[in-house]
Amino acid sequence: MLENLPPISSHLLGTILELDTLLPKPAERKKGIWLKLPLEQSDLVPLAVKEGFQYHHAQPGYVMLTYWIPEGPCMLPANASHQVGIGGFVINQNNEVLVVQEKHCSPATLGLWKIPTGFIHEAEEIYTGAVREVKEETGIDTEFMEVIAFRHVHNVAFEKSDLFFICMLRPLSFKITVDDLEIEAAKWMPLVEFVKQPLIQEDSMFKKIVDIFIARLGKRYCGLSTHQIVSKFDGKISSLYYNVIDNEDGTCVGK
Amino acid sequence: MLENLPPISSHLLGTILELDTLLPKPAERKKGIWLKLPLEQSDLVPLAVKEGFQYHHAQPGYVMLTYWIPEGPCMLPANASHQVGIGGFVINQNNEVLVVQEKHCSPATLGLWKIPTGFIHEAEEIYTGAVREVKEETGIDTEFMEVIAFRHVHNVAFEKSDLFFICMLRPLSFKITVDDLEIEAAKWMPLVEFVKQPLIQEDSMFKKIVDIFIARLGKRYCGLSTHQIVSKFDGKISSLYYNVIDNEDGTCVGK
Repeated sequence: MLENLPPISSHLLGTILELDTLLPKPAERKKGIWLKLPLEQSDLVPLAVKEGFQYHHAQPGYVMLTYWIPEGPCMLPANASHQVGIGGFVINQNNEVLVVQEKHCSPATLGLWKIPTGFIHEAEEIYTGAVREVKEETGIDTEFMEVIAFRHVHNVAFEKSDLFFICMLRPLSFKITVDDLEIEAAKWMPLVEFVKQPLIQEDSMFKKIVDIFIARLGKRYCGLSTHQIVSKFDGKISSLYYNVIDNEDGTCVGK
Repeated sequence: MLENLPPISSHLLGTILELDTLLPKPAERKKGIWLKLPLEQSDLVPLAVKEGFQYHHAQPGYVMLTYWIPEGPCMLPANASHQVGIGGFVINQNNEVLVVQEKHCSPATLGLWKIPTGFIHEAEEIYTGAVREVKEETGIDTEFMEVIAFRHVHNVAFEKSDLFFICMLRPLSFKITVDDLEIEAAKWMPLVEFVKQPLIQEDSMFKKIVDIFIARLGKRYCGLSTHQIVSKFDGKISSLYYNVIDNEDGTCVGK
């Protein structure tokens, strides 16, 4: 690797040589240099930048810099590009939807009773994230059933993109306990009232999502359920989301 | 804002005050400090760290640091957590699937004819990313039809998560031109041969995805098609992915 290296100070070199194993594929060795500097070594950051390194990504404990050796465009894999959110539709046997009002909502949605929403945590599943968010905001225990739709939008936080999965959940408890930090109020709201809200009727996005939810309730819609599968190639447990249709009559097989 | 600030050197203070507008919500002002340092100001990084700032995220041109003022856990939104990939199933009128062999595949999948795959670009749509990747790898023009399933897996690149959307595309051209950089070979392969490959039959993940694809071909499965919708609340164009079912007979309405 050394013969292609830029002139690098000995301080940095010590750190870089330890990082050779971070290179993703054998074919890419000797082409790109990964330099991971922990928070405690932040004094090396300006030194690396002076040597021609670029920022790649950072996490609370470290910053990763890269240097692409060959002429031509950098072929190193990009940083994470998306945040992932979930919304949870929970309906009880009385046809009431679990809804909340947020403490810090935008002025445009003031007064709207909406479904619980939130971001999934690092390495968290969509189906567990949805159950967790509903529990945190309302105290209600639920079981994940399906992703019924998802939304993709760009240039959200830090110019990244956002994938938002709309989930259907079955309630396992019914007594609401409001999360005082984020939630102003929570309640079970009759489905008819929920749908009638002007802020939902007037917005094509909200309206469409509610239409899908109602179609799913009437079994006229197939959501995607989750299935844990281990691939023998990477040995990783994956969640594969797909819908299960009854081949006999073509209708959805919901839980 | 100033009364709650930690003792910060005047160098940093100049940069911070310009960044007040980056704070996401009025309610969070005075609680968290965002410090965006461009590459050219990397000499301020060790200074900020010494003052108690943490790395938040970085892009090639800058690093973002944060400082959380109150006691208690930091409530600032997290960095992007996911990369997003796509795979494209393209089948022609002769029941042949568009397949490739990659130059830099893992030893475990050596010899496998697979569908074209890749990562979507920053701010790119899933449906355009799928069309682009197929075009880049094989030269074939396609039209996006549906997402038929998606896979969620964790601890992939840089300990981030990966969402992989399996798309179905309709071919608009038929002459293959192989991308020499990434692809070893590409061809139209009879569906029966594609499915019979031992590496597909022996892996529960590959097998399941192929089963879904075949069910979709036989119209015994509903994928999610994409619909562009503007929400009046944020004015953003979103892509909403959901399936369209014929309410008359319960079967999918594919294109």
